[in-house]
Amino acid sequence: MKPTHMRHSEDCRAVSEILSRVGDKWTVLVVDYLGQGSMRFTELKRAVGGISQKMLTTTLRGLERDGFVTRTVFPTIPPRVDYELTDLGRELLAPVQALGAWARTNISRVNAARERFDKEQQ
Amino acid sequence: MKPTHMRHSEDCRAVSEILSRVGDKWTVLVVDYLGQGSMRFTELKRAVGGISQKMLTTTLRGLERDGFVTRTVFPTIPPRVDYELTDLGRELLAPVQALGAWARTNISRVNAARERFDKEQQ
Repeated sequence: MKPTHMRHSEDCRAVSEILSRVGDKWTVLVVDYLGQGSMRFTELKRAVGGISQKMLTTTLRGLERDGFVTRTVFPTIPPRVDYELTDLGRELLAPVQALGAWARTNISRVNAARERFDKEQQ
Repeated sequence: MKPTHMRHSEDCRAVSEILSRVGDKWTVLVVDYLGQGSMRFTELKRAVGGISQKMLTTTLRGLERDGFVTRTVFPTIPPRVDYELTDLGRELLAPVQALGAWARTNISRVNAARERFDKEQQ
């Protein structure tokens, strides 16, 4: 049996890894859009807005690697590429959206705290 | 009225900012420990384990700036410095712990997906 703080650290690394994945701005947007159903690369690019082709490719590849998204290529001309949340990705939606809702509700309190803090440092 | 994707982007930035704060490994650990009650700097350092004095100072300062933690100096010799979650910090605990629980439960599925993906790329 490992000492408590060791287990705590390991748990924390796991949590931290997941958070650093879902905490990425583009990742949150992409997961959120895919929550509505499967989308083609070009649809996603248009929907997300302001994301480069390269960044969207990188974001989707990271999500695919982590098992949150599947990528399906249809051999049409030109080839059609669909992205869809896996079961794991769909399960992730709920806690991410809960934290997202908390952030949206409380961002003004965080911003107010920052302004207060910065003013006191002057 | 702003177009939907604009509002979405702004929400997302707010969410992303909060997530990038709470997604930090040391921040999660510190917030989690402080969830049990106020702690002195030295107690926190011992509890977290493996964190440098400088990194703990930086982490606590970030949390103080965001309004999640208060810092109280007692004019003893040597001075005693206590850290405590604010109401805002306490409210943040619930969604962070929910995501943390999800991550702990599912990290093996994410790791398995990564291994599968990396093998397929070889």
